[in-house]
Amino acid sequence: MIDALMIYSKLQKAIRKNFKSEEICDYFKDIFEDCSLFLSKTEKIDLLSKITDKKYFAFEREGKISRAVNQSLFKDDDGSITRFFKIMKEKKYDKLSARELTKAFYTIAQNFCCTIDLIKTGDQKTPGTYFEYLIGHTFSGFLDINPQNKIEVLNLDKKATLPTDFIFDLGVGKSKLHLPVKTSTRERVIQVWAHQRVLDGVYGSGRFIGILVCIAETKTNTRSREVIEICLPDQWKIYQMFISRLERVYYLDIPTPYEKLSKGFPQIIIKSFGEFFFEFNQLIKQSSYTSS
Amino acid sequence: MIDALMIYSKLQKAIRKNFKSEEICDYFKDIFEDCSLFLSKTEKIDLLSKITDKKYFAFEREGKISRAVNQSLFKDDDGSITRFFKIMKEKKYDKLSARELTKAFYTIAQNFCCTIDLIKTGDQKTPGTYFEYLIGHTFSGFLDINPQNKIEVLNLDKKATLPTDFIFDLGVGKSKLHLPVKTSTRERVIQVWAHQRVLDGVYGSGRFIGILVCIAETKTNTRSREVIEICLPDQWKIYQMFISRLERVYYLDIPTPYEKLSKGFPQIIIKSFGEFFFEFNQLIKQSSYTSS
Repeated sequence: MIDALMIYSKLQKAIRKNFKSEEICDYFKDIFEDCSLFLSKTEKIDLLSKITDKKYFAFEREGKISRAVNQSLFKDDDGSITRFFKIMKEKKYDKLSARELTKAFYTIAQNFCCTIDLIKTGDQKTPGTYFEYLIGHTFSGFLDINPQNKIEVLNLDKKATLPTDFIFDLGVGKSKLHLPVKTSTRERVIQVWAHQRVLDGVYGSGRFIGILVCIAETKTNTRSREVIEICLPDQWKIYQMFISRLERVYYLDIPTPYEKLSKGFPQIIIKSFGEFFFEFNQLIKQSSYTSS
Repeated sequence: MIDALMIYSKLQKAIRKNFKSEEICDYFKDIFEDCSLFLSKTEKIDLLSKITDKKYFAFEREGKISRAVNQSLFKDDDGSITRFFKIMKEKKYDKLSARELTKAFYTIAQNFCCTIDLIKTGDQKTPGTYFEYLIGHTFSGFLDINPQNKIEVLNLDKKATLPTDFIFDLGVGKSKLHLPVKTSTRERVIQVWAHQRVLDGVYGSGRFIGILVCIAETKTNTRSREVIEICLPDQWKIYQMFISRLERVYYLDIPTPYEKLSKGFPQIIIKSFGEFFFEFNQLIKQSSYTSS
C-alpha cells in the first residue's frame, strides 16, 4: 500500500506545477491500479441500505470498514477503467455515454477513498484532496485551462486577494467557472453559496457560473451497517433563493432527496457528473456575454 | 471527573426545558468547581507565545496538554468566580467592570474546555456546545427571553423553517438578535455571514442584528509548544462587504490581527465580550425601528 501514497505525493507535486499536464493521468492510473490490488485482498460486505432502489457495500479489513459504495456505480476491474484513463488523457469523453463516464469517475474516486478509509484512521482530508485533484484535472484537461485558486478583489486602499475553490477563466468576453469540489457536503454546503455570493458581489451576478461537484451524501452506521443519505433539500432551496445561484450540482451518486430539486422553485439543477461533458458547450453559450 | 460530565448532562436537560431558568447558573457553578478541582491537580506549563504582549500556558496531565490559556485573562481560584455566579443569577452585570466580566467568562469557559481537552481525545464538540450554552444562557437571562434556533422562511408552496444559531426576538417593533457562538472560527466563519445574509434576505436588511461571540483564535503546536493566532482579517473584510454585515464581534481573548478591523473600511467592530453588557441598550436603540 505504500505505493499508492508514494504516487499520490508525486501527483501532488506534478499538479502544483501544471494541473492539466498529461503525466497526471498516468499517476491517477497507477494509484488506481495499486488501490485495486489492495482492495482485491479485502472483504466486500453488504450494507443495509435504507435508500430506496440503491444497494451499497463496503470493503472490510482488520475490523475496519470503508465508506459505502453504490453497487450499480462501482465497476469491477474488467479493464474498462484502464481504458478509461486513455480517454481521459485524450479528452475524448464523447466515446462513452454519460452513464459510463459517471461510473468510471465514481469507481476511480471510491477506489482511492475506500483504500484510505482502511489504511488510515479518521483521515477525511486525503480523500477530499484527491477528489479535488481528480475533478480539477479533468476540467483542466477538458477546457485546456489551468485553474486559479485565488482571485483579486477590488479594494480602494490596497491589493487584496480571496482564496477560492477552482476558478477557470474561459477568456475575454466569456464566462468564468467557479468549481467547488467536495466528497460530500452536509451542513458545510452553505460555504459554496457564500463563495458564489462573494464572486457575484465582486464581479457582478452571472459572471461566474457556479458548478458544485460531489461524490455522494451517504453515511454509514459502522455498528448497525445501515446506510442513509444525509440531505437538506429545504435548506438548499433557501440558499439558492437568498444567498446566490448555483448553475449546476453534479453528483457521482445523486442523493435521492436532491433529485426533485431540478423541478419546482427555486430550481437547482442536479445531474450525474457524466452529463457535464455533453452539456458543457450549451452551458457556456447560454451564460456567456458578448465580448466588446 | 465524572462529576462535571454528569452535571453537564443535567445542564443539557435543563436547557432544553428552559434556557433562561436560574437553576442553570447552579449547574455552571457546580461544573466550574469540579473542573477547578480537577485542573488544580494537573501541571501548568508555559507555552511559547508568538503573539506580541500575550502570555499563554496550558494544563498538562498524563502526556496530554490542553488548549492555550491567556495568563492575563484566566483568574486563579480566589473565590471571585464563585461570587460571579451570584451576579449571573441576579443578572446584575453592572456590578463588575467590562474587563472583570470578560475575565470571568473567559475563566469559566476555558476551565471546562481545558478539562475536556485532558480527559477526552479529539472532542471539539463538547467544549463548543458548552460555550454555546454559557453564552446562550447569559443572553437569555440578561434579555429575559428564551432563544429560538429555527425560523420560518416564506415559501409560497409550503411551510419551511431554517435551522439557525440563537435568535432572540425582542418583541414587536424591536430588532431581533442573531447570535452565533463559536469557540473559534477559522475558515468556517463564512457560515456566520451567510446565515446573516439569509436572515437579511428573508426578513429585510437591518431587521436582525448579527452578533458573533467567540473565545479566541489561538492554535498550539503540541510538539514545539508554540502558540499562534490564526486570523483572516482580509477575508473577514470581504465577507463584511459582499455577503452581509455583522454588527459586533465579541471575543473573550481578542486576536491581535482583528483589533484593527474596528477602524478602516469596511468597519467590523470587534470588542471584548464584557463590553456587551454596557452597550447593549445603545445597540438596540440605534438598530430598532418604530413599531407601527
